[in-house]
Amino acid sequence: MASQFGTLFRISTFGESHGIAVGCVVDGCPPGLALDESDIQTELDRRRPGQSRIVTQRKEADRCQIQSGVYEGRTLGTPISIVVMNQDQRSDAYKEMESAYRPSHADYTYDQKYGLRAVAGGGRSSARETIARVAAGAIARKVLESQFSAYQCLAFVKTVAGIEATVPQGGVDPAVIESNIVRTCDPVAAEKMIELIEKVRGEGDSVGGVVECHVRGVPTGLGEPVFDKLEADLAKAMLSLPATKGFEIGSGFGGTLMTGLQHNDEFYTSEDGRIRTQTNRSGGVQGGISNGEDIIFRVAFKPTATVLREQNTVTSSGEATTLKARGRHDPCVLPRAVPIVEAMVHLVLCDHWLRQQALRAASPL
Amino acid sequence: MASQFGTLFRISTFGESHGIAVGCVVDGCPPGLALDESDIQTELDRRRPGQSRIVTQRKEADRCQIQSGVYEGRTLGTPISIVVMNQDQRSDAYKEMESAYRPSHADYTYDQKYGLRAVAGGGRSSARETIARVAAGAIARKVLESQFSAYQCLAFVKTVAGIEATVPQGGVDPAVIESNIVRTCDPVAAEKMIELIEKVRGEGDSVGGVVECHVRGVPTGLGEPVFDKLEADLAKAMLSLPATKGFEIGSGFGGTLMTGLQHNDEFYTSEDGRIRTQTNRSGGVQGGISNGEDIIFRVAFKPTATVLREQNTVTSSGEATTLKARGRHDPCVLPRAVPIVEAMVHLVLCDHWLRQQALRAASPL
Amino acid sequence: MASQFGTLFRISTFGESHGIAVGCVVDGCPPGLALDESDIQTELDRRRPGQSRIVTQRKEADRCQIQSGVYEGRTLGTPISIVVMNQDQRSDAYKEMESAYRPSHADYTYDQKYGLRAVAGGGRSSARETIARVAAGAIARKVLESQFSAYQCLAFVKTVAGIEATVPQGGVDPAVIESNIVRTCDPVAAEKMIELIEKVRGEGDSVGGVVECHVRGVPTGLGEPVFDKLEADLAKAMLSLPATKGFEIGSGFGGTLMTGLQHNDEFYTSEDGRIRTQTNRSGGVQGGISNGEDIIFRVAFKPTATVLREQNTVTSSGEATTLKARGRHDPCVLPRAVPIVEAMVHLVLCDHWLRQQALRAASPL
Amino acid sequence: MASQFGTLFRISTFGESHGIAVGCVVDGCPPGLALDESDIQTELDRRRPGQSRIVTQRKEADRCQIQSGVYEGRTLGTPISIVVMNQDQRSDAYKEMESAYRPSHADYTYDQKYGLRAVAGGGRSSARETIARVAAGAIARKVLESQFSAYQCLAFVKTVAGIEATVPQGGVDPAVIESNIVRTCDPVAAEKMIELIEKVRGEGDSVGGVVECHVRGVPTGLGEPVFDKLEADLAKAMLSLPATKGFEIGSGFGGTLMTGLQHNDEFYTSEDGRIRTQTNRSGGVQGGISNGEDIIFRVAFKPTATVLREQNTVTSSGEATTLKARGRHDPCVLPRAVPIVEAMVHLVLCDHWLRQQALRAASPL
Repeated sequence: MASQFGTLFRISTFGESHGIAVGCVVDGCPPGLALDESDIQTELDRRRPGQSRIVTQRKEADRCQIQSGVYEGRTLGTPISIVVMNQDQRSDAYKEMESAYRPSHADYTYDQKYGLRAVAGGGRSSARETIARVAAGAIARKVLESQFSAYQCLAFVKTVAGIEATVPQGGVDPAVIESNIVRTCDPVAAEKMIELIEKVRGEGDSVGGVVECHVRGVPTGLGEPVFDKLEADLAKAMLSLPATKGFEIGSGFGGTLMTGLQHNDEFYTSEDGRIRTQTNRSGGVQGGISNGEDIIFRVAFKPTATVLREQNTVTSSGEATTLKARGRHDPCVLPRAVPIVEAMVHLVLCDHWLRQQALRAASPL
Repeated sequence: MASQFGTLFRISTFGESHGIAVGCVVDGCPPGLALDESDIQTELDRRRPGQSRIVTQRKEADRCQIQSGVYEGRTLGTPISIVVMNQDQRSDAYKEMESAYRPSHADYTYDQKYGLRAVAGGGRSSARETIARVAAGAIARKVLESQFSAYQCLAFVKTVAGIEATVPQGGVDPAVIESNIVRTCDPVAAEKMIELIEKVRGEGDSVGGVVECHVRGVPTGLGEPVFDKLEADLAKAMLSLPATKGFEIGSGFGGTLMTGLQHNDEFYTSEDGRIRTQTNRSGGVQGGISNGEDIIFRVAFKPTATVLREQNTVTSSGEATTLKARGRHDPCVLPRAVPIVEAMVHLVLCDHWLRQQALRAASPL
Repeated sequence: MASQFGTLFRISTFGESHGIAVGCVVDGCPPGLALDESDIQTELDRRRPGQSRIVTQRKEADRCQIQSGVYEGRTLGTPISIVVMNQDQRSDAYKEMESAYRPSHADYTYDQKYGLRAVAGGGRSSARETIARVAAGAIARKVLESQFSAYQCLAFVKTVAGIEATVPQGGVDPAVIESNIVRTCDPVAAEKMIELIEKVRGEGDSVGGVVECHVRGVPTGLGEPVFDKLEADLAKAMLSLPATKGFEIGSGFGGTLMTGLQHNDEFYTSEDGRIRTQTNRSGGVQGGISNGEDIIFRVAFKPTATVLREQNTVTSSGEATTLKARGRHDPCVLPRAVPIVEAMVHLVLCDHWLRQQALRAASPL
Repeated sequence: MASQFGTLFRISTFGESHGIAVGCVVDGCPPGLALDESDIQTELDRRRPGQSRIVTQRKEADRCQIQSGVYEGRTLGTPISIVVMNQDQRSDAYKEMESAYRPSHADYTYDQKYGLRAVAGGGRSSARETIARVAAGAIARKVLESQFSAYQCLAFVKTVAGIEATVPQGGVDPAVIESNIVRTCDPVAAEKMIELIEKVRGEGDSVGGVVECHVRGVPTGLGEPVFDKLEADLAKAMLSLPATKGFEIGSGFGGTLMTGLQHNDEFYTSEDGRIRTQTNRSGGVQGGISNGEDIIFRVAFKPTATVLREQNTVTSSGEATTLKARGRHDPCVLPRAVPIVEAMVHLVLCDHWLRQQALRAASPL
């Protein structure tokens, strides 16, 4: 079950970086939903290499094909298979990595786990694996949007290294986020972030940062009370992404500096009669269950491990050597991580919404 | 599946705070392991109310009983049922909470999810639920210790509000951690933390903090490469604990301020011939798979939501009201959270170790 | 996951025959359902030893206790733990079985699987394990009855050895089935069956037979199209019962003697406008999915393996020996199997009904 | 999870009959196993249309492609995606079925379940779905053969309508089974079966029968003691196949006519020191766990529902009509069912063997 995610909206993904294809099978999508490849392609294009000057310049069109589960433009309720053929196969840019372990990559641990690995492009540990997540997430998003007109999931780059974006008073605006190639909510910070990314790329180095995500229009009642708390499943979803090192929801680590009286979110009834909270330190989730406020969380991405500079390492037989990566790499993964974070949110929320429907279907209350 | 955790070492937990009992069924424990109730009770006693002056003074002996799966002192390989009877049932300290929603508690979200709730003591949302985790974790620990003599999982309180413990040069020492009632690795910080906790309790307020965990003696190869990455499952495990708001592994959020060159962990071969890393910003996990270094992570706990001060809130019908908690509560959950964090680590690692055995069992490599 | 069953209505069972208790945890029961112990006890009493002169005369009251998940007479939507304490513990009627393997029992295979076993009473392989199924099934039944007023699941003894009951023209009548201690639908056959069972008991021997089950009032659309076909899950449920050797639905093995033209169920529209079939060789399921006709299936139970006669066998070290069982055993398991078969049907249908609700919840169709 | 099967060796299948492709993703295959497409194609060719004069004459080459999980001829331990493109798409042989429900097919139940369906070729309910099972089963077989040199799974046609094959004294011989196009173990019966199949095809009618399966070289200890008994999972696997109506293991329904003394399998120790049974009425499984004897079971297949004769039925709006199938269909599914039955056995046994390895991995016994 290593490559499966979700309970009722369940995906099974596959594919090595330089194998024939990457893709997924989505099991549990409701029948009758309008769906075609363009719904998925739109999101894949936001994730694609070569989309701007600050991301990897590899050439991969990443065109998706739906192979099953859709008939005359509508989902059948049966498994939806989506495949993206790999174009940039069998590069020999990876020859030297055959024996030398790249620092802070998965080469060594894959060898320890499996006893062998697909060397080219990192095989299954490549970020190409996230294509399948984005494709499946696009379907989950359509399910959620079909049910909740106000549903909106907006991830954006909050920081790149020490540069922090300011979230506007009125909330983040998707148009602003997509208007700059770094995908942040603050055009001024965007310039500085781009400048920094280009600088470190020039030095053969890399940077990391924080992606923040605001999810609006989420119904109350999603999430399970013990292990499958909504924040627990979001945390897992985010820490399952390549290069992530941390997750916090609502007040997060900063909230540990407050007292209970300062931290608690007092309830009130809004003008439209809904029970709301005055503040949102809970981040939209209380006791593991959504309370209808915006879900707000942050994810830490480490600086890209691939750097074009010589580093010390060892061969697979343990001999000391050095390694210097060649080829085209992301000096900062965050701009392309934004649609991937959103995809994981769609998957988690769609799954929990279906679970909640099953729970309440037979309830007399 | 709301109350189940794990794939091969799988637990199913149950119990409301003021119901008849709490407990769990552990499915997938290997046969032939020496096990009796004292193995479990030792850990439950570290979690128990009333163990020191800085935790809740509720009276619960929390004695466990093994009901199945053990025969003449050895596990049978069949489900192990463990039950702890509730003693402090049917308190009327909760009368006023029947209609008023406690701020930053799960009262409102449970009502939204289920349409009803067990009012007394928070029902299933009570931290008494964690008894089942600690009991099951004690068994998982025995499995791991039976395989890895060097296995050691040491959680401790890193910060309480703004007070931070210093980790000693030579690493944390379990004897030091257990020598102070706040369970920190630094005796000087311990005094300050205890003082602060007593002060906020006197004010009817509460504080939060950070628990850090160092896991030693973990074999390489644990964790799955995509969704069930080891850090993803640890993140889920931690965010599934009551009152948690964040998780970070290795360099965590701080690592986003470094460049790739600074952040990467270079490999070397140690004197005993093992491939190791010079630094451990990865936190013991690379590409989702353990690399044999110590697993190091931190968990943020918010200040306890229950405060003995008047707060604004609403009733279940949305009318404004105020609420002031009575009774005996933890002014700071962290000292009792330490064994719970450890239990979740045991559960995650034991499960992943069994999965790895299954993966490699039929491998010719 | 050895002792778990179901996907959304999921049970986790535990307990050895001569251990402290047997029981289950039911996860996924809808909230707000009226439930108390008498709902469960009624079914347990139909399964209980000592209920008539043709079953085992062991003394076990089998009183159940609900430990969680119910509050003021209504389900909470949280796990329901049910426990039945064992009374007849630590018998020494099993001494000779410690080393000698009982023929056609699970002693040898348990030793091969686990490397040890709970000798007394067969441990986990004892039919006492089915108490948990019956208890959980009683809850599933309540869920189904709350949704489908016409729902009725009627199992009965169709044959005992060569004696076959005649199903009345108008269908089986629950009052008739419960009016005779063998639980068959035909009072004349009942006499002969009872006489045969008493005869073989007198000889220290045993008999088997066939249980048939008619399920009425099942909605259309239950069952999944590929692996989790409704008949596949029913087959698994039945073959998971102790002593079963076969399952057939609708025309079953007999249907292999017909041609397609003879076998096909032609559709017509009934007076009340429903699409129905003229015949029911499909047994209520087509393509794995319920079609609204009665679900009809049969289960073969072998003669009880425990016989009070000397048999050849070997010890655990492989030496030839003989074994003659002592104690109180069922000369025929079928009368007590009837409520167990029904319980498994409730569990399968309730689970599939919840799955279908989740599938259609987000469908625009 | 409608289209997933297995716990540790887990497959996820997809594909409609007249969609773009059918296929599967296999998760949990051990790393380092030699595997290429020919291993899979061999089995697909045994299942393929047009292989002989007594099966459907549709033209489908059914060539498989491995898209992931294999590198330089060895499995990687990551998901293996296998795809077979559909060639015979968009036939208009199905026009009249758009509104009229085919008797004893899944048209009506799919509409009831999903609210829509892929009409052409039966969509997901088509037997083309079994391509994915056969492909995955071929991999499972390689895993088992790599561990157990004596492993051999031999399914064969036992009866076609009333014609029964005689199993030779010395056991069935794979060469004999594959030497006749009906795949039976008895050359004399083969002639009669072929004659009957050709006769009913000439009449536009169809026949069914029984497939028997003998599995040799299975280790002891496979199967779980309660719900996931080996025979329960085999029963589910078989009843999940299209057109199946019954399953029996060992003595099966016939065993209900024996007494316990007659039925029990006495143990003895063989010359090579193994504990064996004198008879095998258990069918190789006792208490849900394999005992090392041959696993022997039978599966009932109904006569093909598609007949080229006019039948009464209704339209989707419930109006009476008649329907007469056109096109190329199997007059008897059994010859092509043989490799499918074997594939399901491989999948069940491989999964249980991996589970058993995980169970015993940490056991001191």
